[in-house]
Amino acid sequence: MTTLAPVLTAADLNEYIAEVYPQIIEQFPGYDVHSIEPGHVVVHMRTDESHLRAGGTVSGPTLFALADMGGYACVLSHVGREALSVTTNLNINFMRKAGPGMLEATCNILKLGKRLMVFDCAIRELGNADIVAHATGTYAIPPKA
Amino acid sequence: MTTLAPVLTAADLNEYIAEVYPQIIEQFPGYDVHSIEPGHVVVHMRTDESHLRAGGTVSGPTLFALADMGGYACVLSHVGREALSVTTNLNINFMRKAGPGMLEATCNILKLGKRLMVFDCAIRELGNADIVAHATGTYAIPPKA
Amino acid sequence: MTTLAPVLTAADLNEYIAEVYPQIIEQFPGYDVHSIEPGHVVVHMRTDESHLRAGGTVSGPTLFALADMGGYACVLSHVGREALSVTTNLNINFMRKAGPGMLEATCNILKLGKRLMVFDCAIRELGNADIVAHATGTYAIPPKA
Amino acid sequence: MTTLAPVLTAADLNEYIAEVYPQIIEQFPGYDVHSIEPGHVVVHMRTDESHLRAGGTVSGPTLFALADMGGYACVLSHVGREALSVTTNLNINFMRKAGPGMLEATCNILKLGKRLMVFDCAIRELGNADIVAHATGTYAIPPKA
Repeated sequence: MTTLAPVLTAADLNEYIAEVYPQIIEQFPGYDVHSIEPGHVVVHMRTDESHLRAGGTVSGPTLFALADMGGYACVLSHVGREALSVTTNLNINFMRKAGPGMLEATCNILKLGKRLMVFDCAIRELGNADIVAHATGTYAIPPKA
Repeated sequence: MTTLAPVLTAADLNEYIAEVYPQIIEQFPGYDVHSIEPGHVVVHMRTDESHLRAGGTVSGPTLFALADMGGYACVLSHVGREALSVTTNLNINFMRKAGPGMLEATCNILKLGKRLMVFDCAIRELGNADIVAHATGTYAIPPKA
Repeated sequence: MTTLAPVLTAADLNEYIAEVYPQIIEQFPGYDVHSIEPGHVVVHMRTDESHLRAGGTVSGPTLFALADMGGYACVLSHVGREALSVTTNLNINFMRKAGPGMLEATCNILKLGKRLMVFDCAIRELGNADIVAHATGTYAIPPKA
Repeated sequence: MTTLAPVLTAADLNEYIAEVYPQIIEQFPGYDVHSIEPGHVVVHMRTDESHLRAGGTVSGPTLFALADMGGYACVLSHVGREALSVTTNLNINFMRKAGPGMLEATCNILKLGKRLMVFDCAIRELGNADIVAHATGTYAIPPKA
């Protein structure tokens, strides 16, 4: 299999994202890249009342944001500080309800090419094996200058 | 073709969404159901600096939220005040960059069954024919009590 | 909006596909590019007993093949004889059952870039307004030699 | 996590599919449910010249058929002989080319509800760790009589 090797640590990445994309931290203060391994990234997000929808469960846009930021962490951690990497496609299935609290997204790089990265991402309430939402997506990587 | 008939006006729907899902209005103050016709709904959202991502363009989570709220407007306007209708799947393609300003989502109901509604949604900058993002999704409708 | 202009006629395209991809014609003898307009392509496929699934309705793989060939017709008709254009993503919703007979796929180019084309496609039984299946997909276009 | 338990063996399932859906076996003679474990199913398919596309690689419709039959094997093996279970949505990413030969699809049930089953599926050339295609999909399960 294609060998994947991270080029940034979780601490590097958290610092970089706060710098280039402050809006996401403002909207989701609990966003945190938890761990990075070859081809795998784990991301956390703490949700509160402001992230809920009708019915009192975590909203779709919140879960999408976590999946999308999981993919962003995948591409940045393995390609480097390419802030302009952008999502081209994301497909998400919502499967179970989640209450406010800590969410964990476990993400895998399925393919890392020169121009595109494909990943998937399973979101769970921290400590609960049931999958709340599952996403697959593609990031476009800007050409090297 | 299956006949589709709205059961709520845009004014009804804006009032209802503000009541059952105040978080979305707080995060996206410019959210507005613009018009409702049989099988078709147009939704607006005004974006500002807080909705941008790295590179200064409207973020993926913001565009997702608009597409998802477009689907929500489709199901509520044609089924009634079923706040607990939930997205089960949403697939979105991001095609062009959008700057801050008014976004318009034109949404179509592709199928309205008893339990599921399928819709698509094209998002543009208001007054610009180019499509910024295109989504297809499914909402589950709660069974009648 | 980006101006789209076809560079091949439907007759050209049918001849070219039969030459570069004879397997599709063998599996789906009724495959036919019906019409090409700027940004829009209509494709037909006749199904028989061999294309049905359990329950006697047209199978998912058959509907997928029609959607995928609709996208192929979009890219070839507007870019030229680039047989090596390949699907990178396709999302399909199956909404209604179809019996054997003539299917019509109406396809739209949502974005035509240098490297990627995004399209959508609605499949109906010919002469019936109800949508049987709806797909959105992306083709990668090979770089010019 | 929800406990999943298969109710059919691979041998049972191969026999049942050949009976209720003979068309798939005719088009893909090498189709075979290889193994079934709680929440996991492995399916094989042998491809030859008839399954290739322009460029000499396995076609998109062939890979879709394998992913879709992987989902069908997931639902039938865990719910029982419900031939009329149907795909409602399938999203597939094509990542690498595959030559003719044996393909392996490893499928996981992400959620098994009363009415819907969500699964994912990674397709590889047998013995090669690189993923050729990855799909996520939903099957609707017919209500109990």
